[in-house]
Amino acid sequence: MSKRLFNFCAGPAALPEAVLQTARDELTDWHGKGLSVMEMSHRSDEFVSIAEQAEQDLRDLLSIPSDYKVLFLQGGASQQFAQIPLNLLGEDGSADYIDTGIWSRKAIEEASRYGHINVAASAREYDYFAIPGQNEWQLSADAAYVHYTPNETIGGVEFNWIPEVGDKPLVADVSSDILSRPLDVSRFGLLYAGAQKNIGPSGLTVVIVRDDLLGKAHSKCPTMLDYSVAAQNGSMYNTPPTFAWYLSGLVFQWLKAQGGVEAMERINGAKQRKLYAAIDGSELYSNPINIADRSWMNIPFRLADDRLDKPFLVGAEERGLLNLKGHRSVGGMRASIYNAVPEAAVDALVAYMAEFEKQHG
Amino acid sequence: MSKRLFNFCAGPAALPEAVLQTARDELTDWHGKGLSVMEMSHRSDEFVSIAEQAEQDLRDLLSIPSDYKVLFLQGGASQQFAQIPLNLLGEDGSADYIDTGIWSRKAIEEASRYGHINVAASAREYDYFAIPGQNEWQLSADAAYVHYTPNETIGGVEFNWIPEVGDKPLVADVSSDILSRPLDVSRFGLLYAGAQKNIGPSGLTVVIVRDDLLGKAHSKCPTMLDYSVAAQNGSMYNTPPTFAWYLSGLVFQWLKAQGGVEAMERINGAKQRKLYAAIDGSELYSNPINIADRSWMNIPFRLADDRLDKPFLVGAEERGLLNLKGHRSVGGMRASIYNAVPEAAVDALVAYMAEFEKQHG
Repeated sequence: MSKRLFNFCAGPAALPEAVLQTARDELTDWHGKGLSVMEMSHRSDEFVSIAEQAEQDLRDLLSIPSDYKVLFLQGGASQQFAQIPLNLLGEDGSADYIDTGIWSRKAIEEASRYGHINVAASAREYDYFAIPGQNEWQLSADAAYVHYTPNETIGGVEFNWIPEVGDKPLVADVSSDILSRPLDVSRFGLLYAGAQKNIGPSGLTVVIVRDDLLGKAHSKCPTMLDYSVAAQNGSMYNTPPTFAWYLSGLVFQWLKAQGGVEAMERINGAKQRKLYAAIDGSELYSNPINIADRSWMNIPFRLADDRLDKPFLVGAEERGLLNLKGHRSVGGMRASIYNAVPEAAVDALVAYMAEFEKQHG
Repeated sequence: MSKRLFNFCAGPAALPEAVLQTARDELTDWHGKGLSVMEMSHRSDEFVSIAEQAEQDLRDLLSIPSDYKVLFLQGGASQQFAQIPLNLLGEDGSADYIDTGIWSRKAIEEASRYGHINVAASAREYDYFAIPGQNEWQLSADAAYVHYTPNETIGGVEFNWIPEVGDKPLVADVSSDILSRPLDVSRFGLLYAGAQKNIGPSGLTVVIVRDDLLGKAHSKCPTMLDYSVAAQNGSMYNTPPTFAWYLSGLVFQWLKAQGGVEAMERINGAKQRKLYAAIDGSELYSNPINIADRSWMNIPFRLADDRLDKPFLVGAEERGLLNLKGHRSVGGMRASIYNAVPEAAVDALVAYMAEFEKQHG
């Protein structure tokens, strides 16, 4: 008997159970065609229809304007950390980056190998527990673009506002909060996301890029990393990760059936309110993040005595609450409550937290 | 009712039915853990055990020496076309390449962007129907490595010998013939393969590289494309394509259960003999490749009158023989008969070819 548990993993993360059931039912024979999606030529009519439908559904969900390309790539956000400067910096340009935590610093470190990177604002002075307000940003005049990380998966801070950067292209790593609520894509030059948090399985990277930013790749940019080559070839310059693309398409259809990103905003809003209320209302648990900057998706919390961490995790597992251990660089706990984590999972976690506090508080 | 048909696709290609059934049975709940492999942290004990087992099984299958790293990467062979010179050419080195068809020419074109590429031999004078013998090769003294393509997926030529290149590292694109028969890995500096032909689903690239070739990446090589970074991090510098890695591991276990690459050599040998015999013994079908250089994996053939192509393909589909249409650059037919294509598929194809010839010959 199959028994599905509640999975709070930061990534690869939970997928909607209905999506996994469809994938299972179609795994050896897709729509009576006699073969698996994994066994189809990426240029077959069948797979092209899957791929195009997935793109259209994502465009619908985020109301992506027609002057943006949607690319289905590989390599994850870490590869984008190089790919973005290789495509947007020219031979020796400069760019502004905002430092709000571990992932934005990784982006800065890699980009610095390809040009001059100006850290226009840093959360360091807030111990990374808050996001520096726009009035503190020192944007430079000659930046090719401005990069930031709307949600820091490890630190647990999230922008609830979109920066104003004039006519500079705004570039954002939306790996961990894409599709969690509505987003005005037209405010951005480029958005990118590893799929394995809020889209689908790992091994797929979605890039949404405005047309005017294409065709400017560095002369040494690998062909496979040139956005314009991917755009000209419908993300099929070579064989794409077809199964991950297909499964992400199933997630997009599931999201539409749930009511789209507006519905997810309501559900995710309720989920995070319940969990932060449980943390803030207790003597045992705490979250250090400035309230206005708290992440909806990744909620780190500590126990007052870290000797309780182990019993807390053991008890959680016994109750089918998986992967609550915090990132090794932060310690404590972290609950990642992406779209596919149901409100029932948060209810079960909150109930367990209260029960544990009663026993150990 | 699910009905599996015979799939001759060049890639993404057929997978063993038993592997797909296991993947289906485990899809929503892997080994009673309450979640899918797709939903596991790549750093969890469960996934690490899957990943390590897959590597060990591949090492066993190919008897990979201990001074070689096995890397599980992304981007396909096309990304390797840049990644290899970025890792092995230094800041401005040179390398020898052998031109035997479309894929080796793509490798040459991309490598030429990163250093001086000497085409040491070309099959052009044979219209790409034969492989130039080693006595015709003009290797250069200062090459950092020698690159060739043991099997040309589109042209249908295959080396049945390993080139002798002295102390130069030999680099080979084994995307379409890895694991089809035994291979002496110790003769190579680096082997690479997109998974979607003879390993598993698309979105995974396997690189087998000798330790002494690590740590020489170009200063502008993206961190994600640096073999030594992947090697130091067990191919988990960032989130790897976990499901494709898992499924490839299932294929490796299936191969072991079949009797390993020695058994595949017997079976694949029988399959290709039957198909070439059917072609050579007919008046209707022909294959232009020099007999000693014929591919075991990808067998292109033409009909004497190309107006028969369409009826041939329609009749094949009616009999459950899928994806026999040749590559657009070659025309005619192509049967890709990788490990996962059973001998029964070849028998069915050969029977259909005879039946069709009787009707139309």
